[in-house]
Amino acid sequence: MKRTLDGLVRSLGCEFRQPALLEAAVTHRSAGSRNNERLEFLGDAVLGFVIAECLFEKFPEASEGQLSRLRASLVKRETLAEVARELDLGDYLRLGSGELKSGGFRRDSILADALEAILGAILLDRGYEACHACIHRLFTDKLARLSSADELKDPKTLLQELLQSRHLGLPVYEVTSVTGKAHRQHFVVACRVVDLDLSVTGEGSNRRGAEQASARRMLDQVEARV
Amino acid sequence: MKRTLDGLVRSLGCEFRQPALLEAAVTHRSAGSRNNERLEFLGDAVLGFVIAECLFEKFPEASEGQLSRLRASLVKRETLAEVARELDLGDYLRLGSGELKSGGFRRDSILADALEAILGAILLDRGYEACHACIHRLFTDKLARLSSADELKDPKTLLQELLQSRHLGLPVYEVTSVTGKAHRQHFVVACRVVDLDLSVTGEGSNRRGAEQASARRMLDQVEARV
Repeated sequence: MKRTLDGLVRSLGCEFRQPALLEAAVTHRSAGSRNNERLEFLGDAVLGFVIAECLFEKFPEASEGQLSRLRASLVKRETLAEVARELDLGDYLRLGSGELKSGGFRRDSILADALEAILGAILLDRGYEACHACIHRLFTDKLARLSSADELKDPKTLLQELLQSRHLGLPVYEVTSVTGKAHRQHFVVACRVVDLDLSVTGEGSNRRGAEQASARRMLDQVEARV
Repeated sequence: MKRTLDGLVRSLGCEFRQPALLEAAVTHRSAGSRNNERLEFLGDAVLGFVIAECLFEKFPEASEGQLSRLRASLVKRETLAEVARELDLGDYLRLGSGELKSGGFRRDSILADALEAILGAILLDRGYEACHACIHRLFTDKLARLSSADELKDPKTLLQELLQSRHLGLPVYEVTSVTGKAHRQHFVVACRVVDLDLSVTGEGSNRRGAEQASARRMLDQVEARV
């Protein structure tokens, strides 16, 4: 017996004009050809955008790299599966018999994909504003908890922690130029990580600002190496 | 002498209430701290979503994997740089002296980033609908040209071409089960690529459909290996 989707609709706080879209969204590919794979593509895209927009507004001082890291932490599989579990989404999934037997309704990847597909279905059925509002509702707590998150430590601290976690030597900062008059000085600082043979520069109106800017850039470089 | 942004505003077909946002969008980080890095984050996100939505509507038969490939081809650096050149965006960039000397205004990455930042600026200044409309205008030609694109070849053909390009043996398809009555049969087909030791299944209401479904899944697997 399939469970009806009324409870899910209530949890989502979003009525469907075309219930077949919600049906498709909870249908794993193992259960039929009218499944949630295309909707997941759409939902993933709208979720990524709406979360990006929230973060951009919420953290006016965050760099592009920090915003990217914050977003990745919110839209990763494990976080989406948590949100899905808060909706008891596993109870509503349509799975093929193999997936059912192996407990697919508890699996992070299946839950996360179905959540994204539901967002895609809401977008198609109710339009962008309704989908936007639903994403805000579903992620309110997670967004609120971000303010104290690791990702918002300052770049120098983050870089130091990252290098230590990999047993690499600490970065070296050096002022390479100071230009401009006393009250409008411009600093350029070089940040070097000798163990990785990396060197970048950062600029700012004071030494500390230039150091943080160089650390931020170095963080991106070090992370890109992984 | 900086060129004013009036010409760019005309090309974009989008007036700005806060011209400072457009100024920031064309400002590379080499030219100052009020630059386009954060706007680029926002623009990348809205562009990815709007293109995903266009493709979802335009190609109702495309799989999630095909949609992802189509999107990647539209939002990759080279394509964005082409669109940027159609707007003569290089003429409006604010670059630091180092980037200016080395011809940064011609570089794909700088042009692509600035285009994304402009989309972010339009989103902030004029809202989602205006930004959506602008993306549609900018990408009309590229979207129109996609219909005959490689990405829409059927999955069996694509898989065969991909394997041949890597000098690997052709896939083997085999019907592993047929269930249901004559007029509502359900086929399961296994697709194997012996050289990669990969095997997946696909399902459908006829043999050809099940083969294509299995090839589609195999394509994703083979591509994930690279």
